[in-house]
Amino acid sequence: MDIKLKYDSNGLIPVIAQEYKTGDVLMLAYMNEESLKKTLETKEMWYWSRSRKELWHKGDTSGHIQKVKELYYDCDADTLLAKIDQVGGIACHTGERSCFYRKLI
Amino acid sequence: MDIKLKYDSNGLIPVIAQEYKTGDVLMLAYMNEESLKKTLETKEMWYWSRSRKELWHKGDTSGHIQKVKELYYDCDADTLLAKIDQVGGIACHTGERSCFYRKLI
Repeated sequence: MDIKLKYDSNGLIPVIAQEYKTGDVLMLAYMNEESLKKTLETKEMWYWSRSRKELWHKGDTSGHIQKVKELYYDCDADTLLAKIDQVGGIACHTGERSCFYRKLI
Repeated sequence: MDIKLKYDSNGLIPVIAQEYKTGDVLMLAYMNEESLKKTLETKEMWYWSRSRKELWHKGDTSGHIQKVKELYYDCDADTLLAKIDQVGGIACHTGERSCFYRKLI
């Protein structure tokens, strides 16, 4: 790639997944260079699972695949924003639509 | 606080700032426990600046303060989502409205 993205000391970059049609923020997860490469190739979201320490094709188990419509990087090139179509309408492993279903304020 | 948030090894938690009225994702930054406390107290966004290594009251210099409307935490309690009113309509230090103004896809 032409753009020099900045990965953290673990080789990861945070990725915000936002639903394309509604603008709802569904989740935040992490990519390494390989998962970004696979995401760019397949136009489906691939993350790095920090708990399982493995490449994670989102939706592989649940069927809740995320199809990439647009992918942005930020001013510091250390965060990504993916606008996606969420297959099945559910992003969270809890069965909630969005991972952000609990409120502090 | 009642909720046990999970901070990373540097004592930080990522925070997505989303504009309340438009749904636009404006930036991602980090909070430590103290900046979260100040955010909850003042209802304005306080971050931890990783480059300057100091508490950062967003907009203190630029005037582009972020007023908190809603604040969510995710299923793993390791990411925050703030829905905010962006004073001045500009979140990015480059003068762009959103930090995500460049595209990979």
